[in-house]
Amino acid sequence: MTELHASADGEQFVFFGGKGGVGKTTVSCAYAYRCARDGARTLVVSTDPAHSVSDVFDQRFGDEPESVDGVDGLDAMEIDPEDEMQRHLDEIRESLSEQVSAAMVSEINRQLEMSHGTPGAYESALFDAFVDVMRTESEPYDRVVFDTAPTGSTLRLLGLPEFLGDWIDRLLYKRKQSIDLFEKAAIGDAEPRRLLEGDPVIERLRERKEFFEFAGETMRSDAAFFLVFNPDQLSVNETARAIEEFTDRDLRVRGLVANKLTPSPDDDETGRGARYLREKVETERDRLSQVREGFDPPLVAEIESRTTEVRGDVLADVAASLDVEP
Amino acid sequence: MTELHASADGEQFVFFGGKGGVGKTTVSCAYAYRCARDGARTLVVSTDPAHSVSDVFDQRFGDEPESVDGVDGLDAMEIDPEDEMQRHLDEIRESLSEQVSAAMVSEINRQLEMSHGTPGAYESALFDAFVDVMRTESEPYDRVVFDTAPTGSTLRLLGLPEFLGDWIDRLLYKRKQSIDLFEKAAIGDAEPRRLLEGDPVIERLRERKEFFEFAGETMRSDAAFFLVFNPDQLSVNETARAIEEFTDRDLRVRGLVANKLTPSPDDDETGRGARYLREKVETERDRLSQVREGFDPPLVAEIESRTTEVRGDVLADVAASLDVEP
Repeated sequence: MTELHASADGEQFVFFGGKGGVGKTTVSCAYAYRCARDGARTLVVSTDPAHSVSDVFDQRFGDEPESVDGVDGLDAMEIDPEDEMQRHLDEIRESLSEQVSAAMVSEINRQLEMSHGTPGAYESALFDAFVDVMRTESEPYDRVVFDTAPTGSTLRLLGLPEFLGDWIDRLLYKRKQSIDLFEKAAIGDAEPRRLLEGDPVIERLRERKEFFEFAGETMRSDAAFFLVFNPDQLSVNETARAIEEFTDRDLRVRGLVANKLTPSPDDDETGRGARYLREKVETERDRLSQVREGFDPPLVAEIESRTTEVRGDVLADVAASLDVEP
Repeated sequence: MTELHASADGEQFVFFGGKGGVGKTTVSCAYAYRCARDGARTLVVSTDPAHSVSDVFDQRFGDEPESVDGVDGLDAMEIDPEDEMQRHLDEIRESLSEQVSAAMVSEINRQLEMSHGTPGAYESALFDAFVDVMRTESEPYDRVVFDTAPTGSTLRLLGLPEFLGDWIDRLLYKRKQSIDLFEKAAIGDAEPRRLLEGDPVIERLRERKEFFEFAGETMRSDAAFFLVFNPDQLSVNETARAIEEFTDRDLRVRGLVANKLTPSPDDDETGRGARYLREKVETERDRLSQVREGFDPPLVAEIESRTTEVRGDVLADVAASLDVEP
């Protein structure tokens, strides 16, 4: 079995991605629980606005790591994406107000208000929030488990450093030119050179470039990605798409987690309900074969749908069914 | 019953919104089928990239209306959102190349490439595509049924006319100022005035303003919106959010369609399978009461999950269970 199963290979950061509702938080909590039980100091970070980590452990968490009652070595925190987005906008506003005139600020505010509700803004704020956790909160932990993973346009942000690099170089060149002109007009004034060094726009761009460089490097060298999906066609198709997006960014998906599989009825059950379940189980089995044969990352877990909430003993059950090294 | 059930009140456009995977296409096809059977000339427009309208009627459709075999008075068409997005970008590029210098075009192209993959671009192209259908394809039909509805940032686009109006006025004012200056410098030259009239940037903005005015007016006066959801908590929450977004835009959601409900087992069934189904049915029933009591729009259909594809007789069944006037 050892050669077959996927492992997180000791990476510090483990991401469980997938569409909303597939059960990323449950799987993340189960995995984090198992890591902690195996002796790794573990932090589970949730970005689920429904606070399901609090539900799983029956304990309220906030935006700072807090230890989980009854599970040694496990901490949890919840990031509220709406809060993060607001903070993100406020930061942009603040840093702008230092850089441009008051008239420009009101114009830009209007633009920001319009962009606020776009899906891109939400994803971008979320990405910032979890890169922040990676930079500032991860130090005491062997494992940091996220119940989300970047996809689509967010993954594309990892290409930003290069783009920003060009832009910064060009901006620096233009600034230099205008400062040279300025100096020719006012010889002996040391002010312009100082302006170049402390330029807040360029400073901000440099910061962002470093931020995305850190994110890209860490995700390539010290992170493992798993994708959670449900056995319906839409979820399978989305998983195919996500695998492609990761591959395009040189990030490898380590394994796939099939969640919410329909349970089989007992062998002696007949009747309408049993027939319905058997047909459903059959269809899902076909779909899983399709995933096993057609997709590159291995299927590392098949977790049955439960009518009760996943917590306590059930969490240990789910954890045991994950064929992923803690 | 007549007072209780929701009706499309004779509006020409009927939208079935909801998240991916809830079954919007099936419900739309069933409703369109019923409208046609009741004598209304009907067009069903699908934006589902999986071509499920083709699956439902076992017939291939393209981006022009085509009559559905075996169903009198029913036409169908499929819009491919990816194609629409590409066309959208090409159009922007083309119209830009007429308006700005070559150097600017290459810079703008770079920005466009970056924006291409954002969720906003997709939604915006989709919105354009279905407003286009409303403007140019709807004339021969009593009913045009869409298997999607604008939400979130797309609904916000309906506020654009006002925004663009201000912008156009300001641009016109600035242009006038510079043309006045130009005329003072070159008295007697008629060229500048002509420039103002045929200005391609202003022309384009005016076009867009009219486009969104048409969209907003039509959606407020001649469209009915229904939301399709599944009986899981995530889908219910998203429906609550969508209702709010519609209300914020002065658009009223006419009714809610619960789809993919778990079927009950036979009364005499016992065993693991039957227990699982009963618990599930119970949970879903609670959720539907929550929807019935907590949400303003009425629940107009409760459609059971089926293990077979919805087509033929099953389509007629689903159509019959929709408590919506054709």
